[in-house]
Amino acid sequence: MAATPSAQYSLTMRVEIEHRPGMLGRVASAIGEVGGTIGAVDLVQVEREHTIRDITVETGDASDWPRLTDAVNAVSGARVLDTTDRTFLLHIGGKIEIRNKSPLRTRDDLSMAYTPGVARVCRAIAEDPDKAFQYTIKRNTVAVVSDGTAVLGLGDIGPRAAMPVMEGKAMLFKEFAGVDAFPVCLDTRDPDEIVAVVKAIAPGFGGVNLEDISAPRCFEIEDRLKADLDIPVFHDDQHGTAVVVLAALLGAMRLTGRRLDKLQIVIVGLGAAGVAVTKILREAGARHIIACDSRGAVTVDREDYLDGTMTAVKRALAPGLERRSGTVAEVIEGTDLLIGVSGARILAAEALRRMNPDPIVFALANPDPEVSPEEALRYTRILATGRSDYPNQINNVLCFPGMFRGALDVRATAITESMKTAAARAIAEIVTDDEQREDYIIPSVFNRDVAPAVAAAVAREARASGTAEAGAEVGFGSTEEFGAVR
Amino acid sequence: MAATPSAQYSLTMRVEIEHRPGMLGRVASAIGEVGGTIGAVDLVQVEREHTIRDITVETGDASDWPRLTDAVNAVSGARVLDTTDRTFLLHIGGKIEIRNKSPLRTRDDLSMAYTPGVARVCRAIAEDPDKAFQYTIKRNTVAVVSDGTAVLGLGDIGPRAAMPVMEGKAMLFKEFAGVDAFPVCLDTRDPDEIVAVVKAIAPGFGGVNLEDISAPRCFEIEDRLKADLDIPVFHDDQHGTAVVVLAALLGAMRLTGRRLDKLQIVIVGLGAAGVAVTKILREAGARHIIACDSRGAVTVDREDYLDGTMTAVKRALAPGLERRSGTVAEVIEGTDLLIGVSGARILAAEALRRMNPDPIVFALANPDPEVSPEEALRYTRILATGRSDYPNQINNVLCFPGMFRGALDVRATAITESMKTAAARAIAEIVTDDEQREDYIIPSVFNRDVAPAVAAAVAREARASGTAEAGAEVGFGSTEEFGAVR
Repeated sequence: MAATPSAQYSLTMRVEIEHRPGMLGRVASAIGEVGGTIGAVDLVQVEREHTIRDITVETGDASDWPRLTDAVNAVSGARVLDTTDRTFLLHIGGKIEIRNKSPLRTRDDLSMAYTPGVARVCRAIAEDPDKAFQYTIKRNTVAVVSDGTAVLGLGDIGPRAAMPVMEGKAMLFKEFAGVDAFPVCLDTRDPDEIVAVVKAIAPGFGGVNLEDISAPRCFEIEDRLKADLDIPVFHDDQHGTAVVVLAALLGAMRLTGRRLDKLQIVIVGLGAAGVAVTKILREAGARHIIACDSRGAVTVDREDYLDGTMTAVKRALAPGLERRSGTVAEVIEGTDLLIGVSGARILAAEALRRMNPDPIVFALANPDPEVSPEEALRYTRILATGRSDYPNQINNVLCFPGMFRGALDVRATAITESMKTAAARAIAEIVTDDEQREDYIIPSVFNRDVAPAVAAAVAREARASGTAEAGAEVGFGSTEEFGAVR
Repeated sequence: MAATPSAQYSLTMRVEIEHRPGMLGRVASAIGEVGGTIGAVDLVQVEREHTIRDITVETGDASDWPRLTDAVNAVSGARVLDTTDRTFLLHIGGKIEIRNKSPLRTRDDLSMAYTPGVARVCRAIAEDPDKAFQYTIKRNTVAVVSDGTAVLGLGDIGPRAAMPVMEGKAMLFKEFAGVDAFPVCLDTRDPDEIVAVVKAIAPGFGGVNLEDISAPRCFEIEDRLKADLDIPVFHDDQHGTAVVVLAALLGAMRLTGRRLDKLQIVIVGLGAAGVAVTKILREAGARHIIACDSRGAVTVDREDYLDGTMTAVKRALAPGLERRSGTVAEVIEGTDLLIGVSGARILAAEALRRMNPDPIVFALANPDPEVSPEEALRYTRILATGRSDYPNQINNVLCFPGMFRGALDVRATAITESMKTAAARAIAEIVTDDEQREDYIIPSVFNRDVAPAVAAAVAREARASGTAEAGAEVGFGSTEEFGAVR
């Protein structure tokens, strides 16, 4: 098996094994010999002559499975009865559900939660639409909106196929920040229509997380929704990535004692993430940025800038970028930091030799980074990837749950540049000076301190900058409707 | 207090009461004297000289509350410290939430539910979009869509104010049929835009329940969505009401030994419910129907029919209606059944005298029926209303949870006339011949047998009529992706 065994390719085999000494050991050895990593071994049933066990095995790829069952079947006295693909099993019927917050068992329950009592609550909101934040799910609910055009590394797979990702996102929102998120996958890719749909469904939501919408449409869609809606709109592929990249960079600066304004930076890839990373780094004080698209460094001297064929978003960035022309392999010369947000293996690790001493490389393409991590480690002081199996994982889950938690808590009407920077600082500060190391510049995605810290920082910044609704410190303490009656 | 005390106006008073014999009795009497019905009495705290208690009192209206606290404060040694409106309290933060179906605590959990494992599931759906019913929430999720233009008896209160009703509906879906429903309240009332929005968000849903959209737009919106979508679309105000009215009528026919085709029927009100009731009764075999709008009986002889100004929906109904002209009070003469789906008190109970012997009256306007129930009972053999405080409550909750449960279970692509009739029969049959009485022709909304019976009948009918997707008996037994690997 070539690839590293992982849970995503974990297979549960139901195996019938003869009662004979050493049989389980023989089965386990057979699995190990073809490269499977054994996890749980459950006893299902003991019969007169056989034992039936469920053996869960992590493999490197689903294509390994026939080899695995062959190996077990080749053990005399063992037989595979059935197999279960655990990842697909987990997805049966979807991964989230609706839950009622109060019981609905008696006529009294019904008369308060539904008719006739609900009419009083409706009337209160009709008189003051702001009360929707008090008495409906709007206060804690985010729409996770995608058109399925740029899903993970899979590209344009359509809205139905995008659902498992958006459901997974909703799970993360709930698990890490208690935010109720609902997936909305759209059967349209027309920006006008997407904007119209999101505006139309907005009354029930307290925020909109745009997800996996391809560039350059994502820029226009986000900008228009931000202008038209009074709830936060956040394109996670852009800003979530940018926030976590900045967090990692702040960590790296602190560890190496360098200053962002002196850093020579090359950004590879100018899709949704690349553009947002470029912007947030500038906002944070970076002064020397080279940004490359598939045609090399973007500058005001490049032909497509001069003849007006460059996309609007890149045109807007170009004047602030270094005027260095050439391919990535060329412009990398003399830089301190490379940030890859493009595609698999676009750079030979050798090229990193031409960077300044103690280079920092964030190779974030998933699942295959821009340079081979194993090779890149030889040439870099600090390496970060988007993957969980190397140190310094740059993963949006460090940002979006806490970002929306904070925004919802103070009823922020938008997510501003300063709120994003505050989030990045909060993430970076989770790793203390004592803990910092080359392979630990950013906290783990499972660090439960991250989301509350991000939420608090975002809420504080929103209040300080006036982005929070006046007096909208949401809590269960409001006595407006249910306080003293006189 | 004029109105009957009910839970919707229940107030919890926190009262400080001096330690003296008979004090609680005195407080309770004071509450009773001003018409409050005492529910729970909880002990909060016992201090040296006082006891603090929470006393929950049902009242007829919120305007009664100051009188209630005054009465308690007037008892020497008792003092109201605080009051809580229980209905509003129940609504704080909304009534439903998202729940993750599996934990997300380890890297393995994440690698199966989210990246990288989720990509395998996405790819499987991209190759066969039908698998969305297997591996996403689509299989069990219904959108409850409203534009807030005809909410309860409140009318056009807008999308934010409609949310508490749609959340309540979602609760009922979950409680009675295990269906995950999500409220989608739309910030548009343009039929074209509503149709476009619902089509756009459809990929993640297995059905669409339209709700509280005003007539005549609701007819067009439903028709267009039914034509364009491959999942069931059901306007509950029309068809839910129609199904439950038919169920009650089947019960009444059985009890009184009458035949639907002989019955002289007058329907009052030709909004969403009235039109659907007229259609379902015809479908079920009724032959003599007079249908009235605010201008009286609709016929092919009426001026607005002849000059072409009658709405399309009424025009289509007119040729099948009795050619009797006049107001409701006039055309009621010689009828056996009156169905009111219009507004409060449009008829003096006296008028019911002109009906045939043993008349049946369904006065469904909520909360105030078309005729006073107390008075109508004097003139009718069978009376049904939409209210819970009179016998024979005709409530849509008897229909929609089971209807969608059945449709989702067999992946029905639509909800047909025969599925609706099957649902009505299933509801009616819950009440056995032995149990039937004038005040029990239809089961209670809390009868837990109803939804499963409706679901089974609807599923059976969908399969028999070919409305179910071939082989789409949904269960957890499919081995397509997670069965044997070879």
